[in-house]
Amino acid sequence: MCTGSSVSDASFGPNVKILNSNSQIVELQTIIRDKNTSRSDFKFYADRLIRLVIEESLNQLPYSDCSVETPTGAIYDGLKYRSGNCGVSIVRSGEAMEQGLRDCCRSIRIGKILVESDADTHVAKVVYARFPDDIARRQVLLMYPIMSTGNTVLQAVNVLKEHGVPEDCIILSNLFCTPIAAKTVVGAFPQMKILTSELHPVAPNHFGQKYFGTD
Amino acid sequence: MCTGSSVSDASFGPNVKILNSNSQIVELQTIIRDKNTSRSDFKFYADRLIRLVIEESLNQLPYSDCSVETPTGAIYDGLKYRSGNCGVSIVRSGEAMEQGLRDCCRSIRIGKILVESDADTHVAKVVYARFPDDIARRQVLLMYPIMSTGNTVLQAVNVLKEHGVPEDCIILSNLFCTPIAAKTVVGAFPQMKILTSELHPVAPNHFGQKYFGTD
Amino acid sequence: MCTGSSVSDASFGPNVKILNSNSQIVELQTIIRDKNTSRSDFKFYADRLIRLVIEESLNQLPYSDCSVETPTGAIYDGLKYRSGNCGVSIVRSGEAMEQGLRDCCRSIRIGKILVESDADTHVAKVVYARFPDDIARRQVLLMYPIMSTGNTVLQAVNVLKEHGVPEDCIILSNLFCTPIAAKTVVGAFPQMKILTSELHPVAPNHFGQKYFGTD
Amino acid sequence: MCTGSSVSDASFGPNVKILNSNSQIVELQTIIRDKNTSRSDFKFYADRLIRLVIEESLNQLPYSDCSVETPTGAIYDGLKYRSGNCGVSIVRSGEAMEQGLRDCCRSIRIGKILVESDADTHVAKVVYARFPDDIARRQVLLMYPIMSTGNTVLQAVNVLKEHGVPEDCIILSNLFCTPIAAKTVVGAFPQMKILTSELHPVAPNHFGQKYFGTD
Repeated sequence: MCTGSSVSDASFGPNVKILNSNSQIVELQTIIRDKNTSRSDFKFYADRLIRLVIEESLNQLPYSDCSVETPTGAIYDGLKYRSGNCGVSIVRSGEAMEQGLRDCCRSIRIGKILVESDADTHVAKVVYARFPDDIARRQVLLMYPIMSTGNTVLQAVNVLKEHGVPEDCIILSNLFCTPIAAKTVVGAFPQMKILTSELHPVAPNHFGQKYFGTD
Repeated sequence: MCTGSSVSDASFGPNVKILNSNSQIVELQTIIRDKNTSRSDFKFYADRLIRLVIEESLNQLPYSDCSVETPTGAIYDGLKYRSGNCGVSIVRSGEAMEQGLRDCCRSIRIGKILVESDADTHVAKVVYARFPDDIARRQVLLMYPIMSTGNTVLQAVNVLKEHGVPEDCIILSNLFCTPIAAKTVVGAFPQMKILTSELHPVAPNHFGQKYFGTD
Repeated sequence: MCTGSSVSDASFGPNVKILNSNSQIVELQTIIRDKNTSRSDFKFYADRLIRLVIEESLNQLPYSDCSVETPTGAIYDGLKYRSGNCGVSIVRSGEAMEQGLRDCCRSIRIGKILVESDADTHVAKVVYARFPDDIARRQVLLMYPIMSTGNTVLQAVNVLKEHGVPEDCIILSNLFCTPIAAKTVVGAFPQMKILTSELHPVAPNHFGQKYFGTD
Repeated sequence: MCTGSSVSDASFGPNVKILNSNSQIVELQTIIRDKNTSRSDFKFYADRLIRLVIEESLNQLPYSDCSVETPTGAIYDGLKYRSGNCGVSIVRSGEAMEQGLRDCCRSIRIGKILVESDADTHVAKVVYARFPDDIARRQVLLMYPIMSTGNTVLQAVNVLKEHGVPEDCIILSNLFCTPIAAKTVVGAFPQMKILTSELHPVAPNHFGQKYFGTD
């Protein structure tokens, strides 16, 4: 049976899915991890990996059967999105995924959350949030490329839940995830789906700085 | 074992590979087949399916192991392309796939073949060809989105072979393929790889006209 | 008085217009002419200059007055395109301008002409042409980036006129033009508009090869 | 004499420059102001106007003479950027201009400022700022598409000055500006350059909501 192009990691339960790895995805991960990659190449190849993760994330959304008529008058039995999706990026690195989402869903609404950690106490705090006002009735693609500890995502999901979004309507789109972050996030939100391209003990923490050039 | 995100169709041998189907790919195919899709939407969603086919085609190219150093000084064992690829589009519909190829391979060289069928005899004839001059030493991604009979592709591959490209260095990137076309092309060129998103008796023949708006 | 962002060159009459030069346009021209520019940079900066020329070409098309209502209920007196435009690229180098045209006019129809010169007689001959079937009723943006002699353009315009396009409905979009080519084309088609970014005795003849990487 | 494609508005002094208006720019402004424009069209045409404003903003940056060698061995006297620029967007609407900046300057560094107004006191306050660490030595393209009062921009410029950026190294890139905002900002920062596409008493305040779909 062919169930799609992502696989679940048994150790984290059915809701942590990993993009089906292949040579070119490993190549993209290699380029992104390489400290000698130029900023221009880094951005180009990160954008490719982002698009692949976004495409697979969209595949987790609900679809309905539909029939369409082709130019020759034949009927084709296909699928269509169920409407009511939106994207939410976690500032700053999550914003790198916004263009990839737009490349796939032309006019999808995109909200934003800014979480900052207190330099002394290390407590993460939401300082800014802007959503479509009917977000409680939408499927939410939460975008955050690098998860090291999971703390920022915990805060962001809490804000979504405070705005009425059910946990099982959230799909976290991620590029690189540590096992400890996966464990933390799944433990806190067992109904949320997590899609990543790699589970690896070391996350490339230079991602945001290198992508945007603010180091 | 997970060998990638495409599957082989046993009836046509190991070299005909089909993109691993999932809900969103069926959705894209539905939109492209629907006669009521606007040109603007048609182009947008065709571009998405093209990118997915191109990404999977690139996955058929040869890769080598490599080790890179990460910003923290760790060594990461990854993969890199073996150099020496190029794209060749079959005019006109194949040109729709050029941008998708550039979105994935920033400065890849792209050649072009124009094949026309004689209105009376239906014989396909090459009227124009332009290639990188070292094409005989490259892997060639041959781009042609719709295969109904396979006749145009036969002519195009013959031209590539006349220019010294070995058959097993050609990967045909295709969106929609009829079983009869697959059989014709595999019969003529058993060493060439064919990658498509769908094998279906009816190919959406309005593709080129709708994509470029020249009907 | 400065009524737009292009100026006419008096020596060639009112229909040869040059993009209003400024520092960044000169910079783009410098990068394109520099033999040490990498292919990746060449394509990136050529695309920028192409977009600027396309934007200014669109400005030559006819517009009509229109009034729209703003979200606050106020009336704003503006302009809108008169419908009925299309693009036609001259293969191969003209195709480099197709994406720029699409970046400005999302679903504009784009036709294509292939002109080849006989290697012995140097006579230019049309070997392929594909147009929207109602092209005679459209304004045509003819795309050809480099004009050295003007011979190819002469053939292409003749084909358009054979298809019923009035000469004064054609706007030639060009990046680099020699004075001799401007003189030839204006002499043959005094009603056609020509828009270029530079009149200079030396045209960068490596443009197509470097843009597409087929040398 | 017309020396470029922007003009100064005499009433605000030499540092307020307006994009040279033409039919297509008025068309873009019309589409953006029209309440009946779809979100998909709104974003497409806003992106076009943004690119034109960005292109003209880049033209305000300093350039140096340079000579390059062409493929035929000739020397071409041209121009090149003086290095050391960066972009800074004011969240949220300014972020709409980031892609346009990247479309013109492939790997330019982009910082970000978030200013929020107190709901009671209407005092604008900076809640987040992230810059390239050597920003004091760079020319800064400050991006903010709609200026109604100028208060947000005042705060943002103050933050840039606190980080050591000289006032005359800031170019404000803007789409729509009210005369009162122009007066306020010029009064506070007479050395800063302001580039806009239109001075008009009514700014399209729905811009950010419509562009991102968060209303």
